[in-house]
Amino acid sequence: MTMLKSVYPLYLNNVAQQPNTDLAVTDKFTGEVAFRVAQADMATIDAAIKGAVEAAQPMAQMASYERQAVLTHCVTRFTERFDELAYALCVEAGKPIKDSEGEVGRLIDTFRIAAEESVRMTGEVQPLDISARSRGYQGIWKRVPIGPCSFISPFNFPLNLAAHKIAPALAVGCPFVMKPASRTPLGAIIIGEVLAETDLPKGAFSILPASRDGADLFTTDERLKLLSFTGSPDVGWDLKARCGKKKVVLELGGNAAVIVDADADLDDALERVIFGAFYQSGQSCIGVQRIIIHADVYDRFRDMLVARTKSLVAGDPKLRDTFIGPMIHAKEAMRLETWVNEAVAAGATLLCGGSRDGAMLDATLLEDVPADTRIVTEEAFGPIALLSSFTDFNAALAEVNASKFGLQAGIFTRDLFKVLDAWDHLDVGGVVINDVPSYRVDNMPYGGVKDSGLGREGVRFAMEDMTEIRNLVIRRA
Amino acid sequence: MTMLKSVYPLYLNNVAQQPNTDLAVTDKFTGEVAFRVAQADMATIDAAIKGAVEAAQPMAQMASYERQAVLTHCVTRFTERFDELAYALCVEAGKPIKDSEGEVGRLIDTFRIAAEESVRMTGEVQPLDISARSRGYQGIWKRVPIGPCSFISPFNFPLNLAAHKIAPALAVGCPFVMKPASRTPLGAIIIGEVLAETDLPKGAFSILPASRDGADLFTTDERLKLLSFTGSPDVGWDLKARCGKKKVVLELGGNAAVIVDADADLDDALERVIFGAFYQSGQSCIGVQRIIIHADVYDRFRDMLVARTKSLVAGDPKLRDTFIGPMIHAKEAMRLETWVNEAVAAGATLLCGGSRDGAMLDATLLEDVPADTRIVTEEAFGPIALLSSFTDFNAALAEVNASKFGLQAGIFTRDLFKVLDAWDHLDVGGVVINDVPSYRVDNMPYGGVKDSGLGREGVRFAMEDMTEIRNLVIRRA
Amino acid sequence: MTMLKSVYPLYLNNVAQQPNTDLAVTDKFTGEVAFRVAQADMATIDAAIKGAVEAAQPMAQMASYERQAVLTHCVTRFTERFDELAYALCVEAGKPIKDSEGEVGRLIDTFRIAAEESVRMTGEVQPLDISARSRGYQGIWKRVPIGPCSFISPFNFPLNLAAHKIAPALAVGCPFVMKPASRTPLGAIIIGEVLAETDLPKGAFSILPASRDGADLFTTDERLKLLSFTGSPDVGWDLKARCGKKKVVLELGGNAAVIVDADADLDDALERVIFGAFYQSGQSCIGVQRIIIHADVYDRFRDMLVARTKSLVAGDPKLRDTFIGPMIHAKEAMRLETWVNEAVAAGATLLCGGSRDGAMLDATLLEDVPADTRIVTEEAFGPIALLSSFTDFNAALAEVNASKFGLQAGIFTRDLFKVLDAWDHLDVGGVVINDVPSYRVDNMPYGGVKDSGLGREGVRFAMEDMTEIRNLVIRRA
Amino acid sequence: MTMLKSVYPLYLNNVAQQPNTDLAVTDKFTGEVAFRVAQADMATIDAAIKGAVEAAQPMAQMASYERQAVLTHCVTRFTERFDELAYALCVEAGKPIKDSEGEVGRLIDTFRIAAEESVRMTGEVQPLDISARSRGYQGIWKRVPIGPCSFISPFNFPLNLAAHKIAPALAVGCPFVMKPASRTPLGAIIIGEVLAETDLPKGAFSILPASRDGADLFTTDERLKLLSFTGSPDVGWDLKARCGKKKVVLELGGNAAVIVDADADLDDALERVIFGAFYQSGQSCIGVQRIIIHADVYDRFRDMLVARTKSLVAGDPKLRDTFIGPMIHAKEAMRLETWVNEAVAAGATLLCGGSRDGAMLDATLLEDVPADTRIVTEEAFGPIALLSSFTDFNAALAEVNASKFGLQAGIFTRDLFKVLDAWDHLDVGGVVINDVPSYRVDNMPYGGVKDSGLGREGVRFAMEDMTEIRNLVIRRA
Repeated sequence: MTMLKSVYPLYLNNVAQQPNTDLAVTDKFTGEVAFRVAQADMATIDAAIKGAVEAAQPMAQMASYERQAVLTHCVTRFTERFDELAYALCVEAGKPIKDSEGEVGRLIDTFRIAAEESVRMTGEVQPLDISARSRGYQGIWKRVPIGPCSFISPFNFPLNLAAHKIAPALAVGCPFVMKPASRTPLGAIIIGEVLAETDLPKGAFSILPASRDGADLFTTDERLKLLSFTGSPDVGWDLKARCGKKKVVLELGGNAAVIVDADADLDDALERVIFGAFYQSGQSCIGVQRIIIHADVYDRFRDMLVARTKSLVAGDPKLRDTFIGPMIHAKEAMRLETWVNEAVAAGATLLCGGSRDGAMLDATLLEDVPADTRIVTEEAFGPIALLSSFTDFNAALAEVNASKFGLQAGIFTRDLFKVLDAWDHLDVGGVVINDVPSYRVDNMPYGGVKDSGLGREGVRFAMEDMTEIRNLVIRRA
Repeated sequence: MTMLKSVYPLYLNNVAQQPNTDLAVTDKFTGEVAFRVAQADMATIDAAIKGAVEAAQPMAQMASYERQAVLTHCVTRFTERFDELAYALCVEAGKPIKDSEGEVGRLIDTFRIAAEESVRMTGEVQPLDISARSRGYQGIWKRVPIGPCSFISPFNFPLNLAAHKIAPALAVGCPFVMKPASRTPLGAIIIGEVLAETDLPKGAFSILPASRDGADLFTTDERLKLLSFTGSPDVGWDLKARCGKKKVVLELGGNAAVIVDADADLDDALERVIFGAFYQSGQSCIGVQRIIIHADVYDRFRDMLVARTKSLVAGDPKLRDTFIGPMIHAKEAMRLETWVNEAVAAGATLLCGGSRDGAMLDATLLEDVPADTRIVTEEAFGPIALLSSFTDFNAALAEVNASKFGLQAGIFTRDLFKVLDAWDHLDVGGVVINDVPSYRVDNMPYGGVKDSGLGREGVRFAMEDMTEIRNLVIRRA
Repeated sequence: MTMLKSVYPLYLNNVAQQPNTDLAVTDKFTGEVAFRVAQADMATIDAAIKGAVEAAQPMAQMASYERQAVLTHCVTRFTERFDELAYALCVEAGKPIKDSEGEVGRLIDTFRIAAEESVRMTGEVQPLDISARSRGYQGIWKRVPIGPCSFISPFNFPLNLAAHKIAPALAVGCPFVMKPASRTPLGAIIIGEVLAETDLPKGAFSILPASRDGADLFTTDERLKLLSFTGSPDVGWDLKARCGKKKVVLELGGNAAVIVDADADLDDALERVIFGAFYQSGQSCIGVQRIIIHADVYDRFRDMLVARTKSLVAGDPKLRDTFIGPMIHAKEAMRLETWVNEAVAAGATLLCGGSRDGAMLDATLLEDVPADTRIVTEEAFGPIALLSSFTDFNAALAEVNASKFGLQAGIFTRDLFKVLDAWDHLDVGGVVINDVPSYRVDNMPYGGVKDSGLGREGVRFAMEDMTEIRNLVIRRA
Repeated sequence: MTMLKSVYPLYLNNVAQQPNTDLAVTDKFTGEVAFRVAQADMATIDAAIKGAVEAAQPMAQMASYERQAVLTHCVTRFTERFDELAYALCVEAGKPIKDSEGEVGRLIDTFRIAAEESVRMTGEVQPLDISARSRGYQGIWKRVPIGPCSFISPFNFPLNLAAHKIAPALAVGCPFVMKPASRTPLGAIIIGEVLAETDLPKGAFSILPASRDGADLFTTDERLKLLSFTGSPDVGWDLKARCGKKKVVLELGGNAAVIVDADADLDDALERVIFGAFYQSGQSCIGVQRIIIHADVYDRFRDMLVARTKSLVAGDPKLRDTFIGPMIHAKEAMRLETWVNEAVAAGATLLCGGSRDGAMLDATLLEDVPADTRIVTEEAFGPIALLSSFTDFNAALAEVNASKFGLQAGIFTRDLFKVLDAWDHLDVGGVVINDVPSYRVDNMPYGGVKDSGLGREGVRFAMEDMTEIRNLVIRRA
């Protein structure tokens, strides 16, 4: 039994099209082709951009309630198709079914938040008569949609990280062209299927799987006013350099750290840290990569972590008790295997895990890892976490900051002043207290500093990026 | 009598230095060297960036009232040195003395606004328990300074457009390195002189005149977290492509238009349009370049404009009744002369002006100018305006939008629905009713769309750009 | 056929109770008893207040999503019961069925807005280190529910004006006791029926029809923290004097005016003014009572108004083409009949209408009405409007202000400066341009000044009133 | 040497007047008459109200920068007259000179905050097209001054608590009439003296010392639109019942508590608690009255408190090392002496203090005080604090809440979750962490719940109360 079809279209200017079935998408656990998807060539992308340009004005003129109706329709349909969406994620991303269901829940949250925000795009009445020269002037500004947007979404949250671009765009009235990840295009395709049921202006959306080679227009075309990319740091920063006059939002990766202070409730922290390190095989920008433990509880917490990690069930993500599924591709698992071996060769101790079978990589813990190994300095993006210890809290903060990345950090402590110190000094987009950095609610501002990105998502914040302030100044003679 | 010195230093890490006097700055009216200024080489710029990096943390930790005290000191000192500052502008920019005084007034406004805003950098308490999965979570976000900033400021408002970068940076607690325009460095230098009187952390500011060749670090150095550039579109967009991971704010140019509708009070509009077109010889990003007049009043308003333009006094900017001073350089005047000739050759009618004497260019009006001539499509940035007529208001709006630029637009009308239509449909950063696009108050959001730039200045808006949102999430088990 | 039952309960601490059937509610058109409702005595009201006090803490601790779920349930159920709710309004209020349907639509809007706002109750991070003495201090404030609320709602919008109290209370987490209007209790009762389907904490709500005599606890009981009353001015101001330490919100009446300027589109204005004056027989706080017409169009617009008024269909509100139904009671119709006669006796001219049959009063227009007659100075609250003319716009504004009331005003003009003058100078809560004062959207701030009331409703604004700011100050030594 | 005059005027409609010298103000330490002040009769108050009504429109029309200029003038002049103002406080309030200087500093802060806020009175552009019926409508609201205000200020902060009413009123453009405390009228009189140097519209302010008997118009006159009272609870709630249609803000008293948890830094806490309990002889609404100490540190902290209390210097407030000056009147000291005796008779233990000499009352500590004695349940408003112990933090929170008052509370703890619990559950206007409840910064929201008052001051918050929202709705046909 499968809820999936064997062939899926692309969406060009709101309409499903099946020019080809060029993109074969595998079941990430079995490795077999699960379905085929149409792929867009440059002419199609160009047509989509043209359509988006033409849709800009009609979309800007949609009433608030009309934009809300589109988003509410999505909430309704995603709820109805909940199981199918979760299954699709499970197959195309190899994401354990429980995590897949969790993501569908968040997809719905994200669209619901956007539906609610779509009628709340406020502006400001601002006094301008602040000096004698401006007597008689008054100002009012509002936000207007920035225009056609370009979206590139990643493989690890095929639904919700597409949603974090699509839903705000619809909420403000921006048409968009989206390139979903080639390995997991189906999430976005189904969103497209649901959007096609609405009466959005022609050109409002195109969802176009494409090979990276042919996809340059997503980056370079000057008709597009904003590029929002979620994915790997190297790709992201390269796009920024090549994207012309567009505004750019980049949600990139990290090597997120969690601090476990001496006063932490270790039993409670254990479950959260295991979750943060290993859920969906660590393939999250905010997955726990570094666990920084107070020396007083280091040995005990290490032993707890190792025991719990060894107990994690790995295997078929479609099974409800599976915790560790496959990585997105064997190449990625191989990369990490190499990094682990490299670290061990440099003196690190392997506490558990470390083995690989195809795309399946064991949940792995290391300690005593030299600070300059790739497994420390680069983004692991897999089921691997590194333990270290500290005695001085400020040194722990410094260790968190000793990274080129800065997305989120977690701290298990109850000490108010440590919390405030962390909030003041951690060079990250978000500090999570009593939990792992891996936590995100879809309405909160989310994004990184340093190499982790540029700008914030989280519906309302993305909406601000997708709009321009347009001021109105009135002179009364 | 002069209030100016013959030699000025640069400011490196808060301290005046006089390594050389390499930069000769002319009196723009006489063409003679008025004073000489130290110029920074690459090593100096590098040292400044290093200093800024070291100042980042101490500045982030300054109390709000300490940042306010620095800005208030500036307000006090600029007020005391009002005449000197105006005179400096008059000499180095060739700006008529009355306009120079106006700019000093705005400099003071800008710092006063920033002083007031410096104690108002608020954050938000945000409910996160918006679905069952986030029960027990709460969120609070605040703004933290983005870090060392790179500022490049233009020649036309040597004080106030430097102030629009410096004052917000101080308000939020960002150190900065600034490269002022080489033709008019003195405004920024004097700001530096005043800042050096404060106890800002070492490295908080460097003001470094530099030749464009040696100044690449302002753009490319990855230690700098934000590049804010005000200047010409070509330069600006090129910087964006080369600036690496920095956030970018660009305040570029335009060919701003004003619509004079049939119901306008022509006498009132006349003075404002003349001001918009010709103040400081049209060398303003929002100077009136295109005057779009309702056919019913076209002939009458044209005649009024021509008569009034002919009456403008051109000459020595130090004289109090001079309205038209020199352009920044004879090359610029020559460029415009060429454009005018080109337009006339293409069929345009010269209504008045058009003659040049060195850097002095007549206030010039043209009509019947073909839409594809450079004087229409490019930024004139000089004392030239073009008349055209319309009968349908929507067509007039379309004519305003028929530009690659989009900074501000002005409309003389009292019709509420036309006002709202313009606010909805004009693709610009600001619509000014009953006045020229050239109007700006220093607290309002200001900036362009399309080729006119990226982002908004206006103290509070610049402050937002100069900060990162840092979220705090708390999980209560 | 009827969708109504013959007997309805009250709701005490979330539970339907039928202690009696003391309150007979008539069909306002036929005058016959339509159904009977339980009435609360003082002991019941006391028990309800006790329950509300006990519910305060549990409600304050509900997660945002739980409050939202309650409100969303209401939206769903009201949508399902749309026809029944409209029919109930039609019967108990004599409201024409189309207007009744309109009100049900607004009921749903109001709850939907509240559902959306319930997850958006934000607070503020505020810098406190604004002078040396507060170095090291920081502040954060949030809103907490004010506690048990007392609501008294009027007869003219039995659903939506109850909703404007109930929905915000649920959105912020305040328990409440409500006394609906005795003549039209059913709207609130059905809201109670739907709320009883949720798992709100016991005591969260009580809906208690009561005779005015026994209802003093709604006003005087000090356990209640806020009194929100919508109704007649005399009653409202008296309650304020007797309500002890409670916060008070009063939404009272007015004698709203509309200005029709010389540039108005009269055909368009006609339909809106007729609507504003006569919908639901003028029984609205913002019904048009005074029509102030520019002298240049006075005669023409008067004739249009008279003709259109005469064409209005009066009769059975259950019939779909009925525009004028009965007033709430023959006594009210008699009162107005008296006022009309009094005005005519004083010199006014009756243009049309003026006759009464029981509770049915003709749609009535008068002109030349002396300014000191009751029909001018008091709230008519019936299908009557008065015409006057003006030549100077400022005089028209002054005429609007020449009232003890100040709720809303309407102006038909396209002149921007007149619009801004009106916004500056009209002493009302809202100025409506190109429409009648009778317009309201349920998310906008709504309420009056002068004798028209105190405070603002409109979901978000009511939510602010139903909360207290609770500050958190942290000193870091 | 004295900086004070022997006679002071009242200010009627901006102008100093000396109709009499009826009010003798004593030096609170010596008990001798220090100066005499004119007192207003009912006719004068009536004239002031009339002037305020006439000033309402001109003040509403002042440009933002004009309102700011008035406030900035005050900041300048208060700074120049710093010593004189502090001396005046010291004499008329018996406030130790150091505390007097602190209050002058805060006076200046309050006016500076107001100056800054005066140009920031923003409004909101709000989408109204949230359902099909409101298509084509848009909304914008702004704030307008509420009109003439009535202010009654207390004796304990003669400058700053007058400033918290006057400065916001000027910031928004409301005229006002103020009745300062009869025992300490001079602070407000000198503010009036400074305001009289500005060109505020005639009638903008009147400062009118008056006997309570003749002062009823401050409460009852319906021309006044807001009554803002700071003083004792009994008087405040009585005024609310008698104030007619006015909006009411009440800043009343309390019996504030501080919790000292087991993890507190006792040395640090000691100085703050002593300050909170005894500064200006405890005559502050947020003075520490109840000290709730964790049992584990109770004995130690009690001993520290007793020792430190005994070391406090009492005596002439004009001497720089005096900590405890006189109470405002011997009657008040006698009242407290009675309460102490009553408590001791009921079983309380007197730890130190308890003696009285005229208006001088010893700094007094008690323990084991029965919960129902007046010294616990009522507001002490003097140099007395009561010690109790707790073991369970939630019980300590409950003890704080076991009061009819709810102004502020302090907690010495570093535990984040206790902090959040306190913020959630303490029924007060403000929770102060790591400090006493007695802390206030003049820009923060400040005010109480329960019997402690209604509404919030703190400049921006008072400004909101002193304005009405005026909505503008535009229908585009």
